[in-house]
Amino acid sequence: MPDEHTACVIISIGDELTLGQSLDTNSRWLSARLLEHGIVTARHVTVPDDAGAIGRVVREGAADAPLVISSGGLGPTEDDLTRVALAAALGDELVEDADALRAIGAWYAARGARMPATNRVQALRPRGAACLANGHGTAPGLRARLGGADVFCLPGPPREMRPMFEASVLPALRPPPGRVVRTRALPTFGYGESRVAELLGDLMRRGRNPLVGTTASAGVVTVRLRYEGGAAEADAALASAERAVRAALGLAVLTPDGETRERTLAEVVLDLLKDRRETLAVAESCTGGLLGAMLTEVPGSSGAFAGGWITYTNAMKHAELGVPDRFVPEEPDPRAPGAVSEETARAMALGCRERARFVLRGAPGVDHALAVTGVAGPEGGTEAKPVGTVWVCRASRDGTVDARRFLFRGGRDAVRTWSAMSALGMLRLKLLGAEMELLGEVERGEG
Amino acid sequence: MPDEHTACVIISIGDELTLGQSLDTNSRWLSARLLEHGIVTARHVTVPDDAGAIGRVVREGAADAPLVISSGGLGPTEDDLTRVALAAALGDELVEDADALRAIGAWYAARGARMPATNRVQALRPRGAACLANGHGTAPGLRARLGGADVFCLPGPPREMRPMFEASVLPALRPPPGRVVRTRALPTFGYGESRVAELLGDLMRRGRNPLVGTTASAGVVTVRLRYEGGAAEADAALASAERAVRAALGLAVLTPDGETRERTLAEVVLDLLKDRRETLAVAESCTGGLLGAMLTEVPGSSGAFAGGWITYTNAMKHAELGVPDRFVPEEPDPRAPGAVSEETARAMALGCRERARFVLRGAPGVDHALAVTGVAGPEGGTEAKPVGTVWVCRASRDGTVDARRFLFRGGRDAVRTWSAMSALGMLRLKLLGAEMELLGEVERGEG
Repeated sequence: MPDEHTACVIISIGDELTLGQSLDTNSRWLSARLLEHGIVTARHVTVPDDAGAIGRVVREGAADAPLVISSGGLGPTEDDLTRVALAAALGDELVEDADALRAIGAWYAARGARMPATNRVQALRPRGAACLANGHGTAPGLRARLGGADVFCLPGPPREMRPMFEASVLPALRPPPGRVVRTRALPTFGYGESRVAELLGDLMRRGRNPLVGTTASAGVVTVRLRYEGGAAEADAALASAERAVRAALGLAVLTPDGETRERTLAEVVLDLLKDRRETLAVAESCTGGLLGAMLTEVPGSSGAFAGGWITYTNAMKHAELGVPDRFVPEEPDPRAPGAVSEETARAMALGCRERARFVLRGAPGVDHALAVTGVAGPEGGTEAKPVGTVWVCRASRDGTVDARRFLFRGGRDAVRTWSAMSALGMLRLKLLGAEMELLGEVERGEG
Repeated sequence: MPDEHTACVIISIGDELTLGQSLDTNSRWLSARLLEHGIVTARHVTVPDDAGAIGRVVREGAADAPLVISSGGLGPTEDDLTRVALAAALGDELVEDADALRAIGAWYAARGARMPATNRVQALRPRGAACLANGHGTAPGLRARLGGADVFCLPGPPREMRPMFEASVLPALRPPPGRVVRTRALPTFGYGESRVAELLGDLMRRGRNPLVGTTASAGVVTVRLRYEGGAAEADAALASAERAVRAALGLAVLTPDGETRERTLAEVVLDLLKDRRETLAVAESCTGGLLGAMLTEVPGSSGAFAGGWITYTNAMKHAELGVPDRFVPEEPDPRAPGAVSEETARAMALGCRERARFVLRGAPGVDHALAVTGVAGPEGGTEAKPVGTVWVCRASRDGTVDARRFLFRGGRDAVRTWSAMSALGMLRLKLLGAEMELLGEVERGEG
């Protein structure tokens, strides 16, 4: 019985990857699938369509790990060199596999075509290797033993690679028994990554089990727990670590106790609204639709989201939301508050809340409105209102209003994303009846 | 004078990558930028947050290539180990860099905050290394010589990594003289990737120079030309290939003759509008703000984009855009056209065009309106209107109206993205005075 698959080296093959023309999504997908079965990835390596480079990383992978999985380089063209490289690594010659040749012929016949002569090369395999059936394309995969390692070579296109992994690799995996890998994710909003690390303190120490780490994306810092060890202790160890993380981060954790599914901030807010049968509308200036897009990205958002206004010009703010034209005069006036001001943000939110409609008949008005107006840049900043200055206002049917000024850094996309996320964060605090200062906040309006 | 940078090894660092939780986009971006400067990537390697693994791939990279660039592992937490690993690879101790420490303190001071104690570790560098300034975050980069190689360690977040590459790595590159790599990109919209390949035919043959390939992202198929060879012949060879591609693809190429900058469809449309001093507003149902977000992502979009409505409920369509309630009755009525219909899309576009305002005083109305209404899924499909059914309507001040039904595949995100892109594609055709059937189109309304 060969060794257990305690670790895996994943190899991606293709000029389009090392030239930066295509993004490698196979490595991530394979790592995630392997981890679900308790196998940890030691490294990803990506090499061009070069037989020497492919052969070298296959040999190094097999020397370092008991499992090697490659994708790419199995097509019919001259730069598909995985077959040749594997044969060289094995010290084998290439032979034609009769079953594979029949399968390729049948693939074309099923499409009313004859196999092009160029595709015959896809039926070649190193003498000591076996072919893996491809139900979604012409390229057979390959499987071989190299030193102490199992090597699987899969085709590059995800729609062929993924089914072949499920059909031919998964059943051959030998995860180490007794030892499992389990993960939990706790998304947070409102603190920066270093503030989260500071609050977690010793919980993030290397060598702990579960290991606690963080990743940050579009404003959400996700705390990730990873347990490796006996199956019997997994749940208790993860639950205990989860409790400690929740205690350290409090309100910043977006998901309720015991829930560790990754969720976007928009999902969390929509669920809170739907629980309360409350409705929301938005009024967007600098975000220009991004806040609405985040909300409607969530399936079922129509249960709470009415819609809103993209009031990109002052004329739209005035005509549609009733922002007084003395706030945003046509002729620039240094005495007027201007589009990026507490006054305008409040008027946008109030107008939006009163005018939006969730049902066709019945009085207008929704339960909550969010308004965003700011300087996204790169142009338009002034000394008093530099690029990144954003006013966000939440107004609710109960008469409460929360207006905050933020100063965000990092370019137009970052300012817009943070603006929309902060609006959602402010509504979440209202729905939870809680208070928290959000990252980037520099001023509060009067309540 | 050290060696030329004939090749580069790119390293990505992070548990989230080898665990399959996050997708590595840095390697691709770095490879593409290096190639623009004539430097070819030998391989990408991704390793977990493990000082031994990081140190090993840095040493192997420096042994194999004169240029090594890593990203990740420079944060303030205990699982940020790139500093430690580089110090070990160099055989150096870690010392505190006074300038870097001041820069981190200033970063927090500019935000009205004190530097958390945890961030002090980010000012450490191997004694023989130099710190690279970070204008977009707290983590300084590192630069060192290891054997014959230049090693650059950049932070992981793209918004920090990319500006640091431009500011600190690019000026230090020494591409091999004589042999150049030059690329051109021709973005297209309206055809699928296989149709583009079919139209390009023999132009895409391997071994040609320039090499012609395609990549597809969010509806845009980009044709990429790559020339490798003597500098003297580069321009003529690329111009000749560009002419052939333009001849094969015609109107689908988004950029005007001779322009090969990558541009989004929204940028192209906004430039056409600004050239004509014309204005645009949008009315969005299933896209829920995504079309507005695509337009306002472009700096300077306020020169042509007035704003619009997110009419996610039927009540908003009726109250704000004047869609007759007999089209979208409160009680479901099989005889009514419903929210996803040519009638509703036309009414949305016409109402939007007439009501939107670009200037505060003066008559309402903009030159063009785009309306989108569809079934984004995963719920809400019927036999007559399956998930992916979308009506898009363009209405213009000259009285012309173009309404098209599309059927898109691929899940909620894909349906929404394609819907917004197709609306932009339809406006582009109007502005060019041209006609083309767009991918996914299944029906035209009456003109």
